[in-house]
Amino acid sequence: MSIVLGANQYGKAETRVVRVDRDADGHRVTDLNVSVALSGDMTDTHLTGANDKVLPTDTQKNTVYAFARDGVGEIEDFALRLARHFVDSQPTIGRARVRVERYPWARLELAGRPAHHSFSRSGEGTRTATVTYDGQRAWVVSGITDLTVLNSTGSEFWGYVRDPFTTLRETRDRVLATAVDASWRHEAADDVDWGKSYATARRALLEAFGETHSRSLQQTLYAMGERVLTNCPEVVEVRLRLPNKHHFLVDLAPFGLDNPNEVFHAADRPYGLIEGTVLRDDAPPADPAW
Amino acid sequence: MSIVLGANQYGKAETRVVRVDRDADGHRVTDLNVSVALSGDMTDTHLTGANDKVLPTDTQKNTVYAFARDGVGEIEDFALRLARHFVDSQPTIGRARVRVERYPWARLELAGRPAHHSFSRSGEGTRTATVTYDGQRAWVVSGITDLTVLNSTGSEFWGYVRDPFTTLRETRDRVLATAVDASWRHEAADDVDWGKSYATARRALLEAFGETHSRSLQQTLYAMGERVLTNCPEVVEVRLRLPNKHHFLVDLAPFGLDNPNEVFHAADRPYGLIEGTVLRDDAPPADPAW
Amino acid sequence: MSIVLGANQYGKAETRVVRVDRDADGHRVTDLNVSVALSGDMTDTHLTGANDKVLPTDTQKNTVYAFARDGVGEIEDFALRLARHFVDSQPTIGRARVRVERYPWARLELAGRPAHHSFSRSGEGTRTATVTYDGQRAWVVSGITDLTVLNSTGSEFWGYVRDPFTTLRETRDRVLATAVDASWRHEAADDVDWGKSYATARRALLEAFGETHSRSLQQTLYAMGERVLTNCPEVVEVRLRLPNKHHFLVDLAPFGLDNPNEVFHAADRPYGLIEGTVLRDDAPPADPAW
Amino acid sequence: MSIVLGANQYGKAETRVVRVDRDADGHRVTDLNVSVALSGDMTDTHLTGANDKVLPTDTQKNTVYAFARDGVGEIEDFALRLARHFVDSQPTIGRARVRVERYPWARLELAGRPAHHSFSRSGEGTRTATVTYDGQRAWVVSGITDLTVLNSTGSEFWGYVRDPFTTLRETRDRVLATAVDASWRHEAADDVDWGKSYATARRALLEAFGETHSRSLQQTLYAMGERVLTNCPEVVEVRLRLPNKHHFLVDLAPFGLDNPNEVFHAADRPYGLIEGTVLRDDAPPADPAW
Repeated sequence: MSIVLGANQYGKAETRVVRVDRDADGHRVTDLNVSVALSGDMTDTHLTGANDKVLPTDTQKNTVYAFARDGVGEIEDFALRLARHFVDSQPTIGRARVRVERYPWARLELAGRPAHHSFSRSGEGTRTATVTYDGQRAWVVSGITDLTVLNSTGSEFWGYVRDPFTTLRETRDRVLATAVDASWRHEAADDVDWGKSYATARRALLEAFGETHSRSLQQTLYAMGERVLTNCPEVVEVRLRLPNKHHFLVDLAPFGLDNPNEVFHAADRPYGLIEGTVLRDDAPPADPAW
Repeated sequence: MSIVLGANQYGKAETRVVRVDRDADGHRVTDLNVSVALSGDMTDTHLTGANDKVLPTDTQKNTVYAFARDGVGEIEDFALRLARHFVDSQPTIGRARVRVERYPWARLELAGRPAHHSFSRSGEGTRTATVTYDGQRAWVVSGITDLTVLNSTGSEFWGYVRDPFTTLRETRDRVLATAVDASWRHEAADDVDWGKSYATARRALLEAFGETHSRSLQQTLYAMGERVLTNCPEVVEVRLRLPNKHHFLVDLAPFGLDNPNEVFHAADRPYGLIEGTVLRDDAPPADPAW
Repeated sequence: MSIVLGANQYGKAETRVVRVDRDADGHRVTDLNVSVALSGDMTDTHLTGANDKVLPTDTQKNTVYAFARDGVGEIEDFALRLARHFVDSQPTIGRARVRVERYPWARLELAGRPAHHSFSRSGEGTRTATVTYDGQRAWVVSGITDLTVLNSTGSEFWGYVRDPFTTLRETRDRVLATAVDASWRHEAADDVDWGKSYATARRALLEAFGETHSRSLQQTLYAMGERVLTNCPEVVEVRLRLPNKHHFLVDLAPFGLDNPNEVFHAADRPYGLIEGTVLRDDAPPADPAW
Repeated sequence: MSIVLGANQYGKAETRVVRVDRDADGHRVTDLNVSVALSGDMTDTHLTGANDKVLPTDTQKNTVYAFARDGVGEIEDFALRLARHFVDSQPTIGRARVRVERYPWARLELAGRPAHHSFSRSGEGTRTATVTYDGQRAWVVSGITDLTVLNSTGSEFWGYVRDPFTTLRETRDRVLATAVDASWRHEAADDVDWGKSYATARRALLEAFGETHSRSLQQTLYAMGERVLTNCPEVVEVRLRLPNKHHFLVDLAPFGLDNPNEVFHAADRPYGLIEGTVLRDDAPPADPAW
């Protein structure tokens, strides 16, 4: 028996780069959190401390800033440019994964008109992109996170398995709330209108959440994934992670009050966690995309 | 010398109550975080453990839920109702302070129309109200927090004091960003249109931030407070706490690139912190309002 | 009526400075979070944007680093040095407040002996010091935070006020847990053995928490403050902020099980919050110390 | 092309259960965060909302509490009992994964002796266990997280790849700090002395961190994994995730001061992130263990 090195990667995580496009008719702000992870044959580095195959994470950070100088564009494209640069410029790097989070900003309205250079952070969710490139192929996964949604009715939960530990009461009308964490894999890495694809996928998630009369969060999850695939033919697989942010009906009977589904306690922990994948049956293998 | 009890208060913090108003033409969601703090002559409790003057924090929580049954309305009114209840119903409670935070939700749009009962968390800031009531008078402080704003130009910083520890370079064009934490004291506790007052104050803060050509965050702070006072005659004092969320221009010269105020590093810590009060010179004493 | 500037201050918050003392027989690590707040006549700055009275927060940060070069010593002394420097060197600064948090590190044990230069973060609480200096006098407040403690018995809660919203059941045996946030004001700013004083105060808090048979968290709070004052004659006032980290007994009866105070649910929110001051009756006025 | 359901699981996350063992000679506290994830043939649930194969997450939570009634013991055993229960008692559940985090508490010392029932949270790291059970086999992964360590010398970084984006200067003496997130897979799920194994692995990680003269965090990572495998023959694979918590030497030259590796800025973001696996070359396949 001997001890060996297995899978490994290294990189700079969470470089916070903000790009301002100073267009004459109105600035634009691109607020990113960029994480790079590189891998290759790093056995020497791990065993002997030889760093001649290591591109320092500090250099990776510098590269992110430098590439932002030429403009960011869609975050999928920015991640692709970075990933290809690292692998194609360094013989020791076999694979790069670049994840970009884009925080949403909205233009302020001043004196009834859109502001020229003033913005506020908005709540429409953080847009994400994860690109993996191995020197030959690139895989692109887009996504959204930090998107909290709630249906105040139209949600049931009953007919479930009962066992000796069951105390939950069935309900035909509950609040359903979740913080959407969704990612979707694209079939191709090129010639995709990323901005349009993202807008379509985001709208599909919201509409499916709002329009599904739900008997379980699983059913809602599937509907959301299915809607993205239906509306975005460029997407082959959707992965969703939906915490069930419980809103418990408060028992007001001790105070002589009824509670016709109006007053709820929003609990922190524990929470249900529903995770699932919805995909086209002809989706190509995911390979290292995720 | 002997040891004595000084100022003290006790209460239930962060009760998370969500109220759904099930109006026929569209539900409404009121998502609150309510904290109660009570005080009175609690010497016995502290010295002997006698609890006959203690209204348990559990009971306070129940009261919050029960009062929500009758509707919440404006958060200032809800806090007033609770504060008055605690003091007026319990002879041992001399003063109550109730703080309410209201998280923003926006109605989803489904099939091009406002949804009936589907919502998403929005980014317009958390509305706050703090009410203090002593059995005779009530003081109301409204506010906003979690409101992050940014000007991508129109901000300078120069002409400051220099000493042996100065290395900062002057700038005539920088990014100015902050997370607004503002509170404003009302002259009266009754007969105020709280909703309209809040909307006016919030807009005043945003417009003053966006419209002020800034030579320092202090100047912007004052302009924001002044604007609230000018637009809201019912307000007598504004307190602002503005972290300077530094956006540092990245030096791209080592890579042969210029950086005409386009690529920034958004730093976490340390950060500047500018705090200030703007008030009417005829403002009545604040007493225990804050 | 006109609009005026009220109380204000500005500074650099949360400068994270780590000092390594490279003693031959073993390094020492001092890990600090330093926040500076300065005030003076800043009317011009706020009204006109003139910065000639502003010592930039960037300079404040530099000063923190530079002063650490000469060694940190006790954090009270470090804060005093900084506060006096800012006020005494700048005519425009009338008052400085410096808060220092020190994160705890423990030396690793390697091969059965204390390590020379290897450490791990420990859980003994974050030590704090807040110094206020106005050019003539200095006030020193020491403290501790992030110190979570629990008694698994020896705590009761009964005999409290009942009202129509009471549902809590009395208990003669509960878990009492809190995250201690304590600060204590010293009578003097000089000639105090800060390290010894801190160790004594910290031990007093822990011992009083553990040794008090508690009928309420208020009683425990008072006992903790009283113990600090008794054991630390140099201290004149103690302020405590104790969240009641509720541990609710789980009802296992539906599963045919009893629960003799053994299985608890540790809740996040809401939580009780007990705040109080314990002081010597001959304590001098606090002035701007807090 | 049609749309299908892929991998999925559901469960209750972060049930916070605290168990008190009321031994006569001293209580013991077991403070856990338990997350359950179940999977099986859930197609109907996702497609039609039929819940007849769903064991509600509320029931899962109840089960965690009920099982704690009989004692927790080692967290690996507790997770095994729960995982086996879910799969073996429910025909619709094909696989269970149970993750347990155990927060560390230390007994207080009162009057020079170990306290009977008083504790404080300590900083020795959070112990973790993840058990996967498919009805036939069980896999056990133990681990530690929230363990922050620092070497104030004995770390170098030089000889790395240079490219046009390199600005980092080589160093022969730097501070190396990380927050250890380590997990290790056991060969067997039964007849392991989990407590002893954990203590040995934890010590191995700390000693390897402290005793390795490091030329890169990768080298340190490998040494840590190797040490666990060497000292714990029951372990076949170690996975480590080590953020490089950068401590940047502050340039004090502008103030006329040198800085012989004594004053550092502890940065938040970005940070290096080094991830790697160290395993025995005869390790059996990991299957669904991770």
